[in-house]
Amino acid sequence: MLTESQRERIQVILVSPRNPLNIGAVARAMANFGFMRMRVVAPYEPHWREARSAVGAPQLLEEALETASLPEAIRDCALVLGTGTLTHRKAEQPVVRLDELAPLVTESLHRGERIALVFGPEKHGLTREDLSYCHVLVEIPTDPRQPSMNLGQAAAVCLYELATRAQIPVNGPGEPPQNVEEPAPMSGNLDVLAGLVEEVMTAVHYSPKTMQAANRHDLRLMLRRMRLNTSDIRRALGLFRRILWRLKSGGHT
Amino acid sequence: MLTESQRERIQVILVSPRNPLNIGAVARAMANFGFMRMRVVAPYEPHWREARSAVGAPQLLEEALETASLPEAIRDCALVLGTGTLTHRKAEQPVVRLDELAPLVTESLHRGERIALVFGPEKHGLTREDLSYCHVLVEIPTDPRQPSMNLGQAAAVCLYELATRAQIPVNGPGEPPQNVEEPAPMSGNLDVLAGLVEEVMTAVHYSPKTMQAANRHDLRLMLRRMRLNTSDIRRALGLFRRILWRLKSGGHT
Repeated sequence: MLTESQRERIQVILVSPRNPLNIGAVARAMANFGFMRMRVVAPYEPHWREARSAVGAPQLLEEALETASLPEAIRDCALVLGTGTLTHRKAEQPVVRLDELAPLVTESLHRGERIALVFGPEKHGLTREDLSYCHVLVEIPTDPRQPSMNLGQAAAVCLYELATRAQIPVNGPGEPPQNVEEPAPMSGNLDVLAGLVEEVMTAVHYSPKTMQAANRHDLRLMLRRMRLNTSDIRRALGLFRRILWRLKSGGHT
Repeated sequence: MLTESQRERIQVILVSPRNPLNIGAVARAMANFGFMRMRVVAPYEPHWREARSAVGAPQLLEEALETASLPEAIRDCALVLGTGTLTHRKAEQPVVRLDELAPLVTESLHRGERIALVFGPEKHGLTREDLSYCHVLVEIPTDPRQPSMNLGQAAAVCLYELATRAQIPVNGPGEPPQNVEEPAPMSGNLDVLAGLVEEVMTAVHYSPKTMQAANRHDLRLMLRRMRLNTSDIRRALGLFRRILWRLKSGGHT
């Protein structure tokens, strides 16, 4: 099984949940499988209050962190897993089936990273914008005739899978993994880099106005696809800061 | 993945479910993972009607079989899996963790058997009497601080596990298993044998009156533990019929 400290590093993120019963069901599944860190993005306030004050609501609901946006909620996470079904669209990031997810999570935990498991609102799931902050889209292998799962049940299935299968150490029980890589950058650091690259784009008039949003979206996806490590980020930040400074000082040294 | 015909042979049995929302949630999880055979034992009628007539209720609820007792519902099943948590009692039958269940189910499906996955009522789960009809108690590995799962979530987790992991053929993909054993007897045939053994017990005054119920219970458990095959059953039936006949004819040949 995952250790207590590994479970602590897995954050369950609910984006704009509506139904208080579903919020309660996610919290209960978390308690059932020993997870305690919930973060909630822009919840519908009356229902959020109702879920937290329900009789028998797990303690972790009381302690849940509330943020206004998804990037804020995942700022300190190095592996961001979006959940959903791929019925009507093609994914823009790698898709991993839930039953094949364990090695990825195990490696990330071994690198000491914090992980976010993100669930979208009940009606339509995560938006394309939400997904652009995710490294991987986790697909629950449901029947194509009835693909869409209830939020509480989807959370139970994902947490069961992580609790039972993410524990297997890569190199056998007890041994530390070989070639432990440098931790991946936290989502917030990628956002800082993305912001800087955008400033440069603006300064050099790279994007026509109509393309700015699309380019920002693609940049976000690309930065997550590249799997930069923290020194890559440091170097890239240094380079773009220097570019920006040169541009602003009018090209003179 | 399990084939359609394998999924057809897995029956989901709900014993006396109360909450129509939970019944609907189980049906939805079944549809999500491609299972279609539900059987319901002694449901609370108003809530059962309500669950079946709910807007968007899956077709499989309409087709669910209703029985008065658990033995009736599992009569044609050769592997009966009870679900639950073991918080307050010691199990009287083998316990298998859900994440280690797949090989057992895979082998049973390869022998062409029908399987029952049995869920108890919301409040207290399966009784000791219900469990005496089960070959194995399946335990969902939950946190000891919050072991008890919501019925719809427990069903989702079990069905996800079977749908994703019970498909792996024992001898690699595509190959039939070696040494295919004779199918295990169906639960109903064990009940016939148990009935005959009890008649013999009564005829020879084996059980004092106060012990009859306990002995019946133990006999049921023992017959399931023995993993008799169908020829064993046939032989045992022949033997006990002959004993009974001799006893009734007064010991004369």
